[in-house]
Amino acid sequence: MAHLDAETVERLIGLDLGQTAYTYSARDAALYALGIGAPADPLDQEELKFVYEKSRHTFQALPTFAFCFSSGLIAKLLSGRLGHIEYEPMQLLHAEQLLELPRPLPPAATVRSRHHIAEILDKGSGMLIRIHSESFDEGGQALALARWSVFIRGLGGYGGTRGASAARERPARPPDVIHEEKTAPAQALLYRLSGDANPLHADPEMATRGNFEKPILHGLCTLGFAARALLAHFGGNQAGSLRAISARFASHVFPGETLRTEMWRLAAGEIAFQTRVKERPALALSQARARMER
Amino acid sequence: MAHLDAETVERLIGLDLGQTAYTYSARDAALYALGIGAPADPLDQEELKFVYEKSRHTFQALPTFAFCFSSGLIAKLLSGRLGHIEYEPMQLLHAEQLLELPRPLPPAATVRSRHHIAEILDKGSGMLIRIHSESFDEGGQALALARWSVFIRGLGGYGGTRGASAARERPARPPDVIHEEKTAPAQALLYRLSGDANPLHADPEMATRGNFEKPILHGLCTLGFAARALLAHFGGNQAGSLRAISARFASHVFPGETLRTEMWRLAAGEIAFQTRVKERPALALSQARARMER
Repeated sequence: MAHLDAETVERLIGLDLGQTAYTYSARDAALYALGIGAPADPLDQEELKFVYEKSRHTFQALPTFAFCFSSGLIAKLLSGRLGHIEYEPMQLLHAEQLLELPRPLPPAATVRSRHHIAEILDKGSGMLIRIHSESFDEGGQALALARWSVFIRGLGGYGGTRGASAARERPARPPDVIHEEKTAPAQALLYRLSGDANPLHADPEMATRGNFEKPILHGLCTLGFAARALLAHFGGNQAGSLRAISARFASHVFPGETLRTEMWRLAAGEIAFQTRVKERPALALSQARARMER
Repeated sequence: MAHLDAETVERLIGLDLGQTAYTYSARDAALYALGIGAPADPLDQEELKFVYEKSRHTFQALPTFAFCFSSGLIAKLLSGRLGHIEYEPMQLLHAEQLLELPRPLPPAATVRSRHHIAEILDKGSGMLIRIHSESFDEGGQALALARWSVFIRGLGGYGGTRGASAARERPARPPDVIHEEKTAPAQALLYRLSGDANPLHADPEMATRGNFEKPILHGLCTLGFAARALLAHFGGNQAGSLRAISARFASHVFPGETLRTEMWRLAAGEIAFQTRVKERPALALSQARARMER
């Protein structure tokens, strides 16, 4: 591997990571929905429409399903090489995620996505890399903008830009709404079939190599549970009502644990939220925001 | 619809139902395995190898995954027409199933299956139709023989052959082994992604039309749970050890209920079993047999 100095590293900013294609059917969107815990109640048509293609309520792809458009990017990140930066894939952590959706997702589509490195920061204990992914339908209409922030443990301290710590605080008052939901012991094994095959979420040995006592839930799976809570409480369970969501993956969740999402109404359509692990004093999602439109 | 008399109906015996093709990857086999409750313990490599394609123990497709080879047949049955027999699809019930496997399933393959009507019986309250499906790999090697027995409620009493009632009794002694496992509330919604899209297992309204208070679990899902119990207790969790399995779907199971599979060793490699619903006095699988080879 090339010597890591600030100049060498920061030359990667702007690097084109190529295009990926993703074709999905209602079945794929349903599998994703099951992966993030839908439906909470299989007899309730409100969420049944996210997993049942012939639902009396028209089938809808969940908004966070758009993360799957970047499956090809995830495979690239797991290769252990980005440009001339090499790393042990098990040292890779998902740090933050942002998603913006200009319109509701189609129930089925072929999507093309372009990825590039937007920012690289030296956080001391590791390197933070931000990647922008823009996704378009076959007609060239923008479907999603995702910003992936990944943290490579051990690759920091090369003398690069640290970046500002732009902490977005939650309101001081108690949450306006609280939503609890238990994940399944096999939740990560189900979620990974939607395109994130990182062994950290399946393989006990690889999890140990990543310094976890056992496989952990995908951060985006936790974020998906939170998105469902937002849709249920602020979006009338209409998939298209969630137009933006962002969060920091503050600590890990083990499959089987209960997610407690706390939500605060801010300005019109703006929601602040955070997600705790009920069984342990752990904040899984912090500094999280959503924008809803009805 | 043509008038139902014995001659008209029995002319359908031998009817060629055509060929279907099914291509699967390890991901499809993993999705099926999750659909039948694998792994019971996500940290145990014994069953992790059925859902994790990079498992330290080599990935294996579960033997009952072979039922998915007939997905095209299920779609045909759900069309509400077989030859000149028409019926309301919600009156269709899975009555019995047999599967024979000459060899372990490959982890991925393209499979061709031929289906024909082998037998039609007049059971008074309905019509019992037995369909044989033979599946072959691309090299023409036999992979599976399945016998599907479906019951169409209301279509009996046309004066046809009733057939013998060949009840296979279980031993009178207490079971040698008992295996309990709880299904998930969304078990049927997950299982159906592997190819049985019958609305009876997803849609509360359609379930009502089928005279059930709510959607029921697929009989083959219950049989899959039983097959996993057989593999765990008599096959060292080696997918290839199960060479034949058959059962009668004696009563329905609701997703979320606990399956209690009771097993008896018979002659070498022969197992008798039955599966009860723990929460209700209901026998889900009766007259069931398996043949194991190590």
